[in-house]
Amino acid sequence: MSDTKPFLSDNAAKVHPKVWEAMRAADEADAPYDGDALSAELDARFSDLFGRDCAALWVATGTAANCLALATMVQPHGGVVCHNEAHVELDEGGAPGFFLHGAKLMLADGESAKLTPEGIAAVIDPIRDDVHQVQPHAITITQASEYGCVYSAQELAALSDFAKARKLGLHMDGARFANAAAFLGGSAKDTAGGVDSLAFGCIKNGAMSAEALVLFDPEQAAMVKYRRKRAGHLQCKGRYLAAQVLAMLDGDLWLKNARAANGAAAQIANGCGDRLLHPVQANEVFARLNADEREALRAQGFDFYDWGEGAARFVASWDSAADDAVALGKAIAAL
Amino acid sequence: MSDTKPFLSDNAAKVHPKVWEAMRAADEADAPYDGDALSAELDARFSDLFGRDCAALWVATGTAANCLALATMVQPHGGVVCHNEAHVELDEGGAPGFFLHGAKLMLADGESAKLTPEGIAAVIDPIRDDVHQVQPHAITITQASEYGCVYSAQELAALSDFAKARKLGLHMDGARFANAAAFLGGSAKDTAGGVDSLAFGCIKNGAMSAEALVLFDPEQAAMVKYRRKRAGHLQCKGRYLAAQVLAMLDGDLWLKNARAANGAAAQIANGCGDRLLHPVQANEVFARLNADEREALRAQGFDFYDWGEGAARFVASWDSAADDAVALGKAIAAL
Amino acid sequence: MSDTKPFLSDNAAKVHPKVWEAMRAADEADAPYDGDALSAELDARFSDLFGRDCAALWVATGTAANCLALATMVQPHGGVVCHNEAHVELDEGGAPGFFLHGAKLMLADGESAKLTPEGIAAVIDPIRDDVHQVQPHAITITQASEYGCVYSAQELAALSDFAKARKLGLHMDGARFANAAAFLGGSAKDTAGGVDSLAFGCIKNGAMSAEALVLFDPEQAAMVKYRRKRAGHLQCKGRYLAAQVLAMLDGDLWLKNARAANGAAAQIANGCGDRLLHPVQANEVFARLNADEREALRAQGFDFYDWGEGAARFVASWDSAADDAVALGKAIAAL
Amino acid sequence: MSDTKPFLSDNAAKVHPKVWEAMRAADEADAPYDGDALSAELDARFSDLFGRDCAALWVATGTAANCLALATMVQPHGGVVCHNEAHVELDEGGAPGFFLHGAKLMLADGESAKLTPEGIAAVIDPIRDDVHQVQPHAITITQASEYGCVYSAQELAALSDFAKARKLGLHMDGARFANAAAFLGGSAKDTAGGVDSLAFGCIKNGAMSAEALVLFDPEQAAMVKYRRKRAGHLQCKGRYLAAQVLAMLDGDLWLKNARAANGAAAQIANGCGDRLLHPVQANEVFARLNADEREALRAQGFDFYDWGEGAARFVASWDSAADDAVALGKAIAAL
Repeated sequence: MSDTKPFLSDNAAKVHPKVWEAMRAADEADAPYDGDALSAELDARFSDLFGRDCAALWVATGTAANCLALATMVQPHGGVVCHNEAHVELDEGGAPGFFLHGAKLMLADGESAKLTPEGIAAVIDPIRDDVHQVQPHAITITQASEYGCVYSAQELAALSDFAKARKLGLHMDGARFANAAAFLGGSAKDTAGGVDSLAFGCIKNGAMSAEALVLFDPEQAAMVKYRRKRAGHLQCKGRYLAAQVLAMLDGDLWLKNARAANGAAAQIANGCGDRLLHPVQANEVFARLNADEREALRAQGFDFYDWGEGAARFVASWDSAADDAVALGKAIAAL
Repeated sequence: MSDTKPFLSDNAAKVHPKVWEAMRAADEADAPYDGDALSAELDARFSDLFGRDCAALWVATGTAANCLALATMVQPHGGVVCHNEAHVELDEGGAPGFFLHGAKLMLADGESAKLTPEGIAAVIDPIRDDVHQVQPHAITITQASEYGCVYSAQELAALSDFAKARKLGLHMDGARFANAAAFLGGSAKDTAGGVDSLAFGCIKNGAMSAEALVLFDPEQAAMVKYRRKRAGHLQCKGRYLAAQVLAMLDGDLWLKNARAANGAAAQIANGCGDRLLHPVQANEVFARLNADEREALRAQGFDFYDWGEGAARFVASWDSAADDAVALGKAIAAL
Repeated sequence: MSDTKPFLSDNAAKVHPKVWEAMRAADEADAPYDGDALSAELDARFSDLFGRDCAALWVATGTAANCLALATMVQPHGGVVCHNEAHVELDEGGAPGFFLHGAKLMLADGESAKLTPEGIAAVIDPIRDDVHQVQPHAITITQASEYGCVYSAQELAALSDFAKARKLGLHMDGARFANAAAFLGGSAKDTAGGVDSLAFGCIKNGAMSAEALVLFDPEQAAMVKYRRKRAGHLQCKGRYLAAQVLAMLDGDLWLKNARAANGAAAQIANGCGDRLLHPVQANEVFARLNADEREALRAQGFDFYDWGEGAARFVASWDSAADDAVALGKAIAAL
Repeated sequence: MSDTKPFLSDNAAKVHPKVWEAMRAADEADAPYDGDALSAELDARFSDLFGRDCAALWVATGTAANCLALATMVQPHGGVVCHNEAHVELDEGGAPGFFLHGAKLMLADGESAKLTPEGIAAVIDPIRDDVHQVQPHAITITQASEYGCVYSAQELAALSDFAKARKLGLHMDGARFANAAAFLGGSAKDTAGGVDSLAFGCIKNGAMSAEALVLFDPEQAAMVKYRRKRAGHLQCKGRYLAAQVLAMLDGDLWLKNARAANGAAAQIANGCGDRLLHPVQANEVFARLNADEREALRAQGFDFYDWGEGAARFVASWDSAADDAVALGKAIAAL
C-alpha cells in the first residue's frame, strides 16, 4: 500500500513509537493478569484525568469495553437506548445481545448520530409500564459520534440530567473520545460529562490492542472485573495492555495524537465546502461525492470508503501525513 | 523481582525477541480485523502443520479460544465433559457458562487430570436419555494436562474413537500444546490426534497476546468467526496477533521454546525423586514439599505456588534460566 | 362485569364446555409430563390435520411456543425477521432475547402487519455479508396478523419460496390461526403454507392453557423437546394440556369457535364503513373513532381498547354474544 | 391402570375436587394475565400465611418457579449452592443454566439430600476470592428434601444465619413444602424459616398446573414479574392458576392433602423396618429391596420406581388409597 494516501479508517493505523517503547519496557515478567505494577496504576491515573474517583480496566476491544459496561447497568430483561446508527447496533455483530444476555437495543434518532433527551424520550415514553414491554435501563452515547460530531458540555449535562431523572444508566462509547476532547479544548472531564462509564479509546489513536474501560461506580466496577474474566478478556500478560494505556496518558499523547488526526481532517474538510454532510469536529469527514468524483479521487491515490450511493467517508488518523490531507482537501475542492 | 528465580507460572513470561520482531514488522497499516495479509496466511500454515485442512483464527486468550470452539459444538441445552480439575471448570470464571449460553460442564475423573473413555463413560452412561437430564454434546481435553501430563497418540486415538462412537465433539485445550508436542517428538499432528478443534497455545510459550484457534470442521469455523466478533474478540489491528502466531511457527520456534521449558522442568524434576506427584512430561513439576521445605526454598530465592497443604507447583517457561532450574533441582534434592 | 359487552380481547374468554369436559375426562392419573396417552396422540392428529408429518407439543403460552421454535432455527449470533408491529417485537417482554440467547429481531414493514418478500428483502439485502453485522437465520410471520389480516395461500407460497431461496427458517405465530383458517375456507394445510413450524393457537379460541407447537422438521422437534423442559415448560400433568388441544381438534371445534368469533367481528365491521383501518378477515376490528365517539360507545356498555389517539380495537371471541356484536355494529354506524 | 396400586410419584395425581370447583368458578371472563381479581388476592393471602409481607405469583411449574427466583438472586457470573442430588442439578434439563444465563451450580453434600452450613462451607470456602473462580451468590434448599426429609426450624435458622453472614440469597424449592409443613406441625412460617423466596408447591398436592412463587423481597418480586413474562410463563388466563392456588389455601386444603399423603407414606414405612434408607418425614419412602423383592411387590400390583440396584422409591400422594398404603406396608413386611 506504499503509494496510496490512506483515509479508510483510523482502526488499522500504526502503533505509536511511544507505545512500542512502553510495551518493550514492560517485558520483564511481572504478576499475571492485572496483578502487575502497571495495571495497578490505572485507577489513580484515570481518577486524576477525570477529576473523580474511578476504576480503569484495560480491554482489548471497544466492543468488549462497551458491552461489559452495559451488561452491568442493564438487566437481561431490560433495554439500552442507543442511536439507530450507533456502532453497538450496526457493527458489533450482535455483541450486546451476547454480553447483555438478550437485553434489547432501543433505537433512537438524532442529528449526526447524536442523541438528545427529546430523541430518547420519543422512544421510551410510549413504552407501557408493564411486563409485556421491555423497559429501558440505560442509555449509550458515542463521543465523538459515528458521524464525527461532538457532544458539548451542555448537551452532556442535559443527557446526564435526563438519565438521572429517568433512573437510567449512562454509558459513553469513547472509541474517538480523544478526538472529541481535542475539539472541546482538551478536558477529559468536560468531554465525559456525567456518564457512569466510558470506553476510553486508545486503539484508533495510536495504541495496538488496549482500550481503557473507566467506571465511576465502584459497585459496577467490581462486577465488570468478573465479567471481563468470564468473557475471556482477562489477558494473562496484561502488563502489555496497561503499558499501552499508560503510554497514551503520558505527556498527553492521547490529546496530541487526536489533535494531529483532527487537524488532518480539518484540512480535508477545507476542500469540501457545502459537500459536507456533517460538521467536522473530530477526525472524520463525510462528504457528498458522486461515483465519478470518487473514482477521480481514487485515481489520484486516495483511499476511502463509499458512504452509500452519493457520498464518501474520509477518516484521518494520528499518523496521517499532513501533506496527504492537504492534497486530498485540494483534490476535492478541484473536482 | 530481580534476584528471584521465578517458577510461578509460564503465563507472565517475556515475549520472545522473534515475536517482537514480527510484530514490529507488521506495523505498516494493512486491512483491519482479520483482512490483513498475515491473518490470511494462518489457514494454510496450520493446515500444513497438522497435515489436514483447517481454519486458524487468532484469539487473545485461551479461555476465549476454548469457549468459542465449544460454543459451536454444544447446544445451549447440552453439556461438555471435562476433567474435574480442568481449567474450564476451575479457572475460567464461568466463561463456559457465558459462551455456551448455560450449557453444563460434566465433570469426569482421571489420573493426572487426563480423561479416558472409561472415565467419561462413568459420567455419561448414567445419564437417562430423556429431556429431564442434560445430554452430553462434546468432550474437552487438555494437552498437556493441568498436571503437565501428555496424552499419547494411542490415548488420543481411543478418545477420538469414543467421541465418534458417542457422536460427541472433541476439543483440545492446548494452552501447553507445544510442551506436549515436544514430549511426543515434535509432531503437531500426533499431538492433536483426531480432535475437531484445538486451542493452539502461544502466549505461555513466548507470544504476547495471541493464541491460535484451529478448527478442522469448516462449518464450525464459519460459525466461530461470527462468535469471535460477537464476543468482542475480533481486534481491529489483528495483524499484530497474526504476526505473533506466525512468528511462533517460523523455524519451529514453538517447539524450540517448549523444549527449553520442558528441559528446565526436567532439571527440577531431577531433584525431586519420589516427591513427584505426577510424571513430568511437559514444563510443570508438582512435588510433595512440606511448609518448612517450601520456606527453605523460598529463602533461597525460588518463587513458586503452594499446591495445597503439602506440595508445590513449579512451572518452567521458555525463558527460564537453565542455571536456575538446575539450582532448584539441587536445592530440592538437598532438602 | 355483568352488564358490559366485552370486546377487549379474546385472550381472557371462557373455556369452552367441550374443553372442560375433556380435561375432566383426563383426571385419572397417567404417566407424567408428556408420557401420557393423550400427549401421545398429538403427532398423529396434527400430521393428519396438516397432511404432512409433524411433531406436536403442548406449551402453555404462545410466547413460549414461538420462542421455542425460533430458538432452534436461529443461532444466538443470528437474527429473525419479523414485522415491526409483531407480537414478538412489541409484547413478549423480550422473550425472544431470552430464548434465542441474544439473537436479534430484524424489523420489516408491510401492510396490516403482514410481511412480504419485498419487505423482508428491504431489511436483509443491505446487511453486509460479514461478521460485523448480524445475519438473518429465520423469518416469523403471524397468521392472522396483529391487525387481523390473513395471508393467502399465494402470499404464503411466495414467502416460503423466498425463505427457501435465502436459506431462512420460516415460523408462523398462529395465535389466531383458527380465525385465519376460517377465513380461508377451513384448510389447516392451506393456512399454514410451507412453514417449518407453527404455534397453533388454542387459548384465544376456547382452551384454557394449552397451545400446540407444530414442528415439521423432525430434527428441530427433537431439539425443541429439550428446550421446552429447559425453559420450565414441561408440565408434569401434561395430560390436561393435551386434553385441551385434542378437544379443540375434535369435531373441528377449533374452526367452529373461530367462525363464531369471525362472524361476530363481521357484524361489528358492518357498522364501520370507511372507518376501518384494516380489512376485517378474522376476529379483530380496527376502526377510526375519536375520543368522543369512543366515550359514547363505552357509555352504552361496550368495552374495548383505544388504539392510539384516534382509533379503537374490537376483538370478538368464540363466546361473544351475537347480539352484542350486532348492537356494537349498529352503535358505531349510528355515531 | 385400573388395578394397580400406584406409588410411582405424586406428580401425576388427580386434581382435587375443590380445585376443579375453583377453576370452574373462575370461568367468567376477567382481566387477562395477572390482572384478574383472583391473582390480586395472592399477595395478601400468602403474607397472611407466612406472617410477613410477600408477593406471590402463580407459575406453571416448579422448575420455572425455582429458576425465576434464583435468576434474580444470582448474577450470571455467580453461582448457586445446591445439594448434589437436588432437582435443579439432576432433573431440570439444565433450566438453571438457561434462566440464570450460565451461572454455576455448586454442588454440596449432606445427609438425606439436606444441606448444612458445614456442607456448604466445604464447597465455598475453598473458592479463591478472585475473578478466576465463580463466586457463590445464593443457596437453594429443598423442603422436604429429595429424600423426603424435612429441615427443622433450627436447621433452617442455622442456614438462614449462614446465608446472611455470607451475603448469600436463600431460596427454598418447596415442591413438597406442604408435606414438610404437615410434619412440622402445620406452620407455614416455621417450615419456611428465613428464606428469601419459596416455590410453594401445589401441583404434587392436588392442583393441576399452578405453583405459587413467594417472594419476601419486594425488589426481587418486581424483577421476577418481568422475568416471568420474558420466560413465556405469564399465561393470559391467569385466573385459572390463581384459582388453583387459592383453592389450596382455602380451609387449609394444602395441609389436609399433605397429611393424607404423609399418612399413607407412614403406613408404607411401617412395614419397612430397617430397610429404610432415610427417615420418613413426608410422603416418600426409600427402602432397600432387592430385585426379587421388587418383582414380588409388582406382582401384587404395586407400582413404583427402582432406586438404583438395591432399593425402591414409593411416593404417596394426596389421593393414595389408605388401603393400598396399608397393604403395601404389609407386603413389604411380609417379604
